[in-house]
Amino acid sequence: MEFMLSKNRKVKLALGFNDVSLVPSLSTIDPVDTDVSFELGGTRYELPIIAAAMDGVVDVRIARLFSEFGGLGVLNLEGIYCRYDDYDEILKKIVESDDERVTGLFQKLYQQPVLPELIEKRIVEIKSGGLKAAVSLTPAGALKFAEVVEQAGADVLVIQSTVVSTQHRSKSGGVLDVAKLISGLTIPVILGNCVTYDVAYAQMEAGAAGILVGIGPGQACTTRGVTGVGIPQITATADCAAARDDYFEKTGRYVNVITDGGMRQGGQICKALAAGADAIMTGSIFAGCPESPAAPYHWGMATPDPNLPRGTRVKSSVSVPLKQVLFGPSSVTDGTQNLVGAIKSAMGLCGAETIREFHETQIAVSLSFMTEGKQLQMSQRVGMGK
Amino acid sequence: MEFMLSKNRKVKLALGFNDVSLVPSLSTIDPVDTDVSFELGGTRYELPIIAAAMDGVVDVRIARLFSEFGGLGVLNLEGIYCRYDDYDEILKKIVESDDERVTGLFQKLYQQPVLPELIEKRIVEIKSGGLKAAVSLTPAGALKFAEVVEQAGADVLVIQSTVVSTQHRSKSGGVLDVAKLISGLTIPVILGNCVTYDVAYAQMEAGAAGILVGIGPGQACTTRGVTGVGIPQITATADCAAARDDYFEKTGRYVNVITDGGMRQGGQICKALAAGADAIMTGSIFAGCPESPAAPYHWGMATPDPNLPRGTRVKSSVSVPLKQVLFGPSSVTDGTQNLVGAIKSAMGLCGAETIREFHETQIAVSLSFMTEGKQLQMSQRVGMGK
Amino acid sequence: MEFMLSKNRKVKLALGFNDVSLVPSLSTIDPVDTDVSFELGGTRYELPIIAAAMDGVVDVRIARLFSEFGGLGVLNLEGIYCRYDDYDEILKKIVESDDERVTGLFQKLYQQPVLPELIEKRIVEIKSGGLKAAVSLTPAGALKFAEVVEQAGADVLVIQSTVVSTQHRSKSGGVLDVAKLISGLTIPVILGNCVTYDVAYAQMEAGAAGILVGIGPGQACTTRGVTGVGIPQITATADCAAARDDYFEKTGRYVNVITDGGMRQGGQICKALAAGADAIMTGSIFAGCPESPAAPYHWGMATPDPNLPRGTRVKSSVSVPLKQVLFGPSSVTDGTQNLVGAIKSAMGLCGAETIREFHETQIAVSLSFMTEGKQLQMSQRVGMGK
Amino acid sequence: MEFMLSKNRKVKLALGFNDVSLVPSLSTIDPVDTDVSFELGGTRYELPIIAAAMDGVVDVRIARLFSEFGGLGVLNLEGIYCRYDDYDEILKKIVESDDERVTGLFQKLYQQPVLPELIEKRIVEIKSGGLKAAVSLTPAGALKFAEVVEQAGADVLVIQSTVVSTQHRSKSGGVLDVAKLISGLTIPVILGNCVTYDVAYAQMEAGAAGILVGIGPGQACTTRGVTGVGIPQITATADCAAARDDYFEKTGRYVNVITDGGMRQGGQICKALAAGADAIMTGSIFAGCPESPAAPYHWGMATPDPNLPRGTRVKSSVSVPLKQVLFGPSSVTDGTQNLVGAIKSAMGLCGAETIREFHETQIAVSLSFMTEGKQLQMSQRVGMGK
Repeated sequence: MEFMLSKNRKVKLALGFNDVSLVPSLSTIDPVDTDVSFELGGTRYELPIIAAAMDGVVDVRIARLFSEFGGLGVLNLEGIYCRYDDYDEILKKIVESDDERVTGLFQKLYQQPVLPELIEKRIVEIKSGGLKAAVSLTPAGALKFAEVVEQAGADVLVIQSTVVSTQHRSKSGGVLDVAKLISGLTIPVILGNCVTYDVAYAQMEAGAAGILVGIGPGQACTTRGVTGVGIPQITATADCAAARDDYFEKTGRYVNVITDGGMRQGGQICKALAAGADAIMTGSIFAGCPESPAAPYHWGMATPDPNLPRGTRVKSSVSVPLKQVLFGPSSVTDGTQNLVGAIKSAMGLCGAETIREFHETQIAVSLSFMTEGKQLQMSQRVGMGK
Repeated sequence: MEFMLSKNRKVKLALGFNDVSLVPSLSTIDPVDTDVSFELGGTRYELPIIAAAMDGVVDVRIARLFSEFGGLGVLNLEGIYCRYDDYDEILKKIVESDDERVTGLFQKLYQQPVLPELIEKRIVEIKSGGLKAAVSLTPAGALKFAEVVEQAGADVLVIQSTVVSTQHRSKSGGVLDVAKLISGLTIPVILGNCVTYDVAYAQMEAGAAGILVGIGPGQACTTRGVTGVGIPQITATADCAAARDDYFEKTGRYVNVITDGGMRQGGQICKALAAGADAIMTGSIFAGCPESPAAPYHWGMATPDPNLPRGTRVKSSVSVPLKQVLFGPSSVTDGTQNLVGAIKSAMGLCGAETIREFHETQIAVSLSFMTEGKQLQMSQRVGMGK
Repeated sequence: MEFMLSKNRKVKLALGFNDVSLVPSLSTIDPVDTDVSFELGGTRYELPIIAAAMDGVVDVRIARLFSEFGGLGVLNLEGIYCRYDDYDEILKKIVESDDERVTGLFQKLYQQPVLPELIEKRIVEIKSGGLKAAVSLTPAGALKFAEVVEQAGADVLVIQSTVVSTQHRSKSGGVLDVAKLISGLTIPVILGNCVTYDVAYAQMEAGAAGILVGIGPGQACTTRGVTGVGIPQITATADCAAARDDYFEKTGRYVNVITDGGMRQGGQICKALAAGADAIMTGSIFAGCPESPAAPYHWGMATPDPNLPRGTRVKSSVSVPLKQVLFGPSSVTDGTQNLVGAIKSAMGLCGAETIREFHETQIAVSLSFMTEGKQLQMSQRVGMGK
Repeated sequence: MEFMLSKNRKVKLALGFNDVSLVPSLSTIDPVDTDVSFELGGTRYELPIIAAAMDGVVDVRIARLFSEFGGLGVLNLEGIYCRYDDYDEILKKIVESDDERVTGLFQKLYQQPVLPELIEKRIVEIKSGGLKAAVSLTPAGALKFAEVVEQAGADVLVIQSTVVSTQHRSKSGGVLDVAKLISGLTIPVILGNCVTYDVAYAQMEAGAAGILVGIGPGQACTTRGVTGVGIPQITATADCAAARDDYFEKTGRYVNVITDGGMRQGGQICKALAAGADAIMTGSIFAGCPESPAAPYHWGMATPDPNLPRGTRVKSSVSVPLKQVLFGPSSVTDGTQNLVGAIKSAMGLCGAETIREFHETQIAVSLSFMTEGKQLQMSQRVGMGK
């Protein structure tokens, strides 16, 4: 929906998680009969929840756990794990720092160079025993390290920055030709992030096997406050999904839309999938798990930026083991555990057997979710804090 | 009102209690001259407020009290009252549990089997002395126990789950054929819950004497946060009421629309009735009454779910006796007492002699209720907390 | 603006104070050159701010003060002043009661009968020395006491209830024929309250010299929470002003629209006047003045209702003398002092020389007032609380 | 977007910072290649951020610092610096006053007359060593002192009041003929404030080199609460920018639109520029810098008004040096440092090489910014408070 901001300027209405809910359908389905898998680069993944490439969320161990669960935990190859061989000490420093000094500490720690031999080492560690390795690089890192990544045997490469542009201009050169890079690789590439139809379509044309949707919505990201740039996730997901559907109709190639960021509860994950996502990526939900590398802390990829850090170290409340967060049983009622169960439950209520059927769900928009819904959550949170 | 979410996807605007208010009419009527009754299965009920089938809200004693008041208090036949003969001890355990352990306790207590002989016993206890018994079962429970319920002499059977679908698919079988069940019973059946025109119409076609409207709005229910599914109550009620009116026009049979959940004050009950409900169902309003079985606690039907509990134990502030909550006089000014008086007062201002006339009330929508209205309530709550 | 709630039901968008702001005009005017007076029943009043008929706001002394200032302070003839000759003791009891017992105390105190001789006495006391007396009665009171009021020499009679209907139905009889009553009186009558075009027009046809606009918006009134009935004040005022303009065009008689309730700051008063009001009525703004009869408390007219009290005793923070609240100078910057100065300042910015010109002001609607505007107010309040 | 408020009255939807976000573009650009300069009166300024003419924000030293940075810090010529030769003692009194007495203190201190010799002295002090001097006067002050200002060699004159009208009426005379004044001066004049197309266009026709946009949005200004007058900044900026574009098309003269007030973070500044501003003016952001004259306090120009003060003394949290606030590096992630870096980063994401290209950015509107966005900011603020 568009309307006029001024005499000569249109604005577009955009919706986020708290603005919408899913409409149950006439026909329902038994949750146990639903299928939540998605396919990426010829491989089927049973778990539509991907762990984000944040140093406080995914280390080698977590990457392996996600692969065991049938999913993907993405290791950030430009984070501390490929800058330091013995990273335990580094994590300890971060966990023990106080709030005031931690941004400076990040800025210092991330100045250490990324080592190609550590990239190779981490990929081998993840894959050991036949598991899948998903890893991430920035566009600048991809120029340098994409070849190493492929040779080390990674299964999925994520190229991720605040935005990854197929049409980037820089007078200093060094611009990544995304399409050329992808065409030179044999492994599937996920590109991110984007929030609009046009950029999503261009990334698909550049050969992406998946695209990450979301600028600034995550808990550890402050891009929106710092630069004013961003789109709420429901509209961003639906617009990028429309690009996917059009691209699929034209080319026959189905590219995965992966909503990345802003989800803290099962309900929000269900909304992202119903809005058009094939899978979702999240970090903060897992940061409180006991297996988490820097529990209870995590931080964003833009946090260590030396000039304009756009993220904070966030403290999560202590949670249950990762497996219980993903598959239950849930011991709480606030939607933070048994995420797969929540998805299956929502698909059952909306009569969707697969996630692609779930994309047909009717969505309702309401002012009152802000009050009805949130009030409830707030009172529960208060109650649980006791 | 619909508008475009993306290139190929529409969304529908939906409204909740806090978004609307009722417009007084040109012609007014003396509140004492209003009639708030409704008819269900040939019986007239003077009280349009039904107590919800929650173990913390309705036991045998409360069910009898509601019948004495001319209304219905629904006993949950799959709750603790039909799992344990001596349930006082069980209630005591729940009341004495702390917040952290109570979800686990619920999950354990509700694993005890439901006993047909206790179903029969409770119905007989409620009816003793000529009172009416309304009882509830889940669809799975209805497959097993509907016959027992009818034979025991229940007057109204509520078949209730998060949604009750007339078109449910399950590979493991055991699906309830709602229409067949109803046609085999002689007592009126209320089906629930639903939130859309299509499902409401299908439930009427299946023979329902009443339908329950509401998914996720209640204080003790977190379906919306956990699964993202739900519709705000004003739109849900108005849509289901439109189905009732169309079905009535086509068949001549009038099916009761009963708004279930999300109401804490008289004003919200009035809004539900004006939006199209013939009666309303609520639990939390009564949980603080001294007669309440687990006062001051109550909990939802989805709370004990072993895998994905979607509800919490909620603590209410201590209230006045049930009769005063329903019929006054009110000793407070926040709309939580004399609910029938509030309905009659609103009907007077809107010039409606009967609830079916009240369905013609004009409704206003406003952003400002969120601020004007709520601010007031908040300041009062703060003031009263002292 | 109307849109569809369901298949067959329209709802109307309504706006409140926090939703709007006033647009400054191309042409501005010196505030000292503006004229804020209004005319009622042939008399010109210099002060467009009327003190509400609340026992905690207007006693004989305050009524006299308002008349001296060129305005009207309305004495409630069915309040404690005409039930008790020595009311000081009664006020003291109310002030000294605690929050929990005060509703019951009100219910008891207001059961004492209203005495015609006290009505006469109070009117004479107010008028002493040539001042104007404005007094209020409920419709039921008007049936009994209107004649006494006129004979005692009152200058303005306000007939006020939650709504005053020209088409009220009651099987028990005793319905006030408003038009007949007014035609039998020689003094101007203000009727209230109403919130819609139709009712406003009907009250003008019944002979009202002024109408009060507002149901449930006041700080001491909880009608909206208790019954769900009400309309936000900007839309209510604009709709009733449209009725006034149409009635004036048809009959040549100009009836005053008086916005009643919901205003706490100069900015809200300015918005009401710009939305179409000729004057405004408020109680809570004056309750904190040292001259106030039950300072720092006040309460609403529906507070003492024996069955369904719809109002609370509200505590105000201590303020400056009444004259300073009305005419300044202001020692604070939150809009609670120098209300007339604020009106003149707004009229200057909007280029209006008279209040009827002020009715032409363009109004802007915004979501962001809820955040931009209110955030500011909140931070100030926090700052001032220290 | 307009819609009907009542039968005969339209209202216009207006948007503020919290309602919108910027949509990243298909084509992006390296932030280091962006150009943030603007041109005023033939001089190019590298810094599009102007320090507001508030006594607590700009003294001679800060004015010089801004000029050194390539920008403008406007000295208020009717503030304490031109009323008192030794102003340090005055600032000390203000800083040491308590909250309750400070409004009265302001009212007293600002009664001292403005001295022409101090005006001259301050301008000479600022310009010493070849720097630029920007100074401000009210319309009344401009009548008296504009000549002195020009003769003293000021480079930019700002004529500023709540609104500066080209069509002001006053029976007491003394009205500034803005067009005549400007035509008699050789230095560029910035007029302010305005919020609508019509007034912006009229100010351009009167010869303004720049216009200030914003009524009531600033942290130290309460015009909106006191008088109800104001327009949220995104709509105000876009409307005034539309006037600039139309005026430019007609006359070939490009007038700068300068958004003034309401911005606390880089993201809000980026939004103002994308909405059509050529530069922005802010005070509160700098008030916490150690160089600030009354750190950590500042106050608005309408604060000392003797009758209707419309502003408060605001306390800022202590910040980093001014240079770091403007150019970084940032040690925090909340958008309050490295403002120029934030602008360049946003321009890069939106593919804009110059600020005039940035005016083409697509803007999204969302309810959810109020929740998604603000929640984030709030949790961070809470986290940082510890």
